[in-house]
Amino acid sequence: MIDTIMTGEVLRTFARAIVALVSEARVHFMDKGLHSRAVDPANVAMVIVDVPKDSFEAYSVDEEKTIGVDVDRIFDISKSIKTKDLVELILENESVLKIKFGSVEYSVSLIDPSAIRKEPKIPELDLPAKIVMDAGEFKQAVSAADRISDHVTFRSDGEGFYIEAKGDVDQIVFRMGEAELIEFNGAEAKSMFSVDYLKEFCKVAGSGDLLTIHLGTNYPVRLIFDLAGGKVRVEYILAPRIEAE
Amino acid sequence: MIDTIMTGEVLRTFARAIVALVSEARVHFMDKGLHSRAVDPANVAMVIVDVPKDSFEAYSVDEEKTIGVDVDRIFDISKSIKTKDLVELILENESVLKIKFGSVEYSVSLIDPSAIRKEPKIPELDLPAKIVMDAGEFKQAVSAADRISDHVTFRSDGEGFYIEAKGDVDQIVFRMGEAELIEFNGAEAKSMFSVDYLKEFCKVAGSGDLLTIHLGTNYPVRLIFDLAGGKVRVEYILAPRIEAE
Amino acid sequence: MIDTIMTGEVLRTFARAIVALVSEARVHFMDKGLHSRAVDPANVAMVIVDVPKDSFEAYSVDEEKTIGVDVDRIFDISKSIKTKDLVELILENESVLKIKFGSVEYSVSLIDPSAIRKEPKIPELDLPAKIVMDAGEFKQAVSAADRISDHVTFRSDGEGFYIEAKGDVDQIVFRMGEAELIEFNGAEAKSMFSVDYLKEFCKVAGSGDLLTIHLGTNYPVRLIFDLAGGKVRVEYILAPRIEAE
Repeated sequence: MIDTIMTGEVLRTFARAIVALVSEARVHFMDKGLHSRAVDPANVAMVIVDVPKDSFEAYSVDEEKTIGVDVDRIFDISKSIKTKDLVELILENESVLKIKFGSVEYSVSLIDPSAIRKEPKIPELDLPAKIVMDAGEFKQAVSAADRISDHVTFRSDGEGFYIEAKGDVDQIVFRMGEAELIEFNGAEAKSMFSVDYLKEFCKVAGSGDLLTIHLGTNYPVRLIFDLAGGKVRVEYILAPRIEAE
Repeated sequence: MIDTIMTGEVLRTFARAIVALVSEARVHFMDKGLHSRAVDPANVAMVIVDVPKDSFEAYSVDEEKTIGVDVDRIFDISKSIKTKDLVELILENESVLKIKFGSVEYSVSLIDPSAIRKEPKIPELDLPAKIVMDAGEFKQAVSAADRISDHVTFRSDGEGFYIEAKGDVDQIVFRMGEAELIEFNGAEAKSMFSVDYLKEFCKVAGSGDLLTIHLGTNYPVRLIFDLAGGKVRVEYILAPRIEAE
Repeated sequence: MIDTIMTGEVLRTFARAIVALVSEARVHFMDKGLHSRAVDPANVAMVIVDVPKDSFEAYSVDEEKTIGVDVDRIFDISKSIKTKDLVELILENESVLKIKFGSVEYSVSLIDPSAIRKEPKIPELDLPAKIVMDAGEFKQAVSAADRISDHVTFRSDGEGFYIEAKGDVDQIVFRMGEAELIEFNGAEAKSMFSVDYLKEFCKVAGSGDLLTIHLGTNYPVRLIFDLAGGKVRVEYILAPRIEAE
């Protein structure tokens, strides 16, 4: 039997991170904590979510277990739980997940994990540039770029980090110098990405959350969000778009 | 001539309660206060609204009068009046109702009451279980049940009051023990109702409002909301749905 | 070269005032400040916007210049700037306007001014009645009238200022006596206008903004809004509708 208690914010963040890419996922109750990862149907992006044991108010896992979950449903339920309220997840058997909070108890049917698309291996990526910034600022830049174009270029050089979008007639440059970044190694890198995916990733984060970007040249980017006051780690890996010129 | 003054909240609550079921209704200016009742076109639910004389800032009724009102229109107008602002209803003749607030004066045409569907008799119901709870909690349970199913079961036993919904794959139980209820007689009762009607009823109420439920077994339920700080009494009577099993 | 700095509120107000009537406009950087005016495609209304030099944090104009602007675009961008944040407009050449705020720099392509509809002369109007009131109250009256009818009558006499609308069955009178108006000369005047235009004008203003109305009889009205804490002056001139009787 598995019995875990967390805040509404932790459950919502966990589910929100995954629904950005898929609606069903395998979720692992492991000794070290909750883990899930998935690739979107178009094979463009991967999400890796971890909630370490210490992020729970209570975490009792007799035996490691993998369940198949309708994540849309969990996210939908999690929206009715207040951020600081506690929610209990109970797994008595492999077919039903109980979600209890306040006076409410949901019994959510589980999916056979083998019926859910196989999980991806996490690729090894050699990405020279590292940028640490506020997720809220990143979100604002992505949302500004979205007005101009459906793709956006991330660029890093000795002087700063740039998010650039070029429309048919207008263009926008979002520029952060070393002093405005929390951490920055000044390495050169440049890749182009789809704005739609980035917008979807940003939904899980807000101002005050920490975002670490690992960037290469014409290479996938790693975006690591530190969420729910450090209790949830969400990583997205996004494939680049080829710059047509 | 009739001349009455109330708060915007009282007028809005009065109108909101009725539009849940019908768009036109007979409204009675009586010596003891304002009264209206109506049955929805499908004959599934009844609403009974009373605003006692004492709930008005001023209430002058020369002679008891019944008017026919486009309640949608009144509700629409009432939305532009602030909760604590005063609004005056003036009836100089049977064809026009004047609604004055701030610098605004509406003249709303009335409907011949005889053209509006005959009013229902209030049925006598013998309902064993009595539950008094916060309307906000009830609203939350109904809205949670709505995600799972289009019907919901109210159940009362010696231990508490339950709101249950069962979907194709998931289910939800909302459980309140005696200690969490404001008043509870512990009688046994169980009936099933349509979520759509309940959702509509809940719109008039919020957290902090008192709700009294009288429940029987496979029998109509009475839901009595104490609204606008006790100034407006709204009762809904809702027919049960037959449990198919 | 032109380089000006203003608050986000000033830029947003400037753009909002114009998009009420047209999506492209000629904008003049003059020694005394920013100016623009335009007539809507139906020739029913004119907008005249002025931001005096003193309303800027910095205003450097080497040489007076006229540019052609996609005002919808500017308004869209201005919405992402906070009210009190500073925004810089830079014009290095006649084809691109740079808009800088925070870490963001937009480059917006300009339109050849000669491709934009010729600007109107400002008509001389002899309007007897003058009414000064809170723009928020005016907005509320227009929005109330909109529920009743698609046209509205402004009327002024020795006793006050009236906004009246007459629907098929209902009517509304919004009445402000001399004591409730900020300034009022009591002159007689009466004209009817389209509610749609008035609603559009009101969007630029809010409660606390000053509105000066110059009214005649069956004659255009001048509505002068004093906005953004007195930093932006927006005037609308609206042609009357003929009262069919």
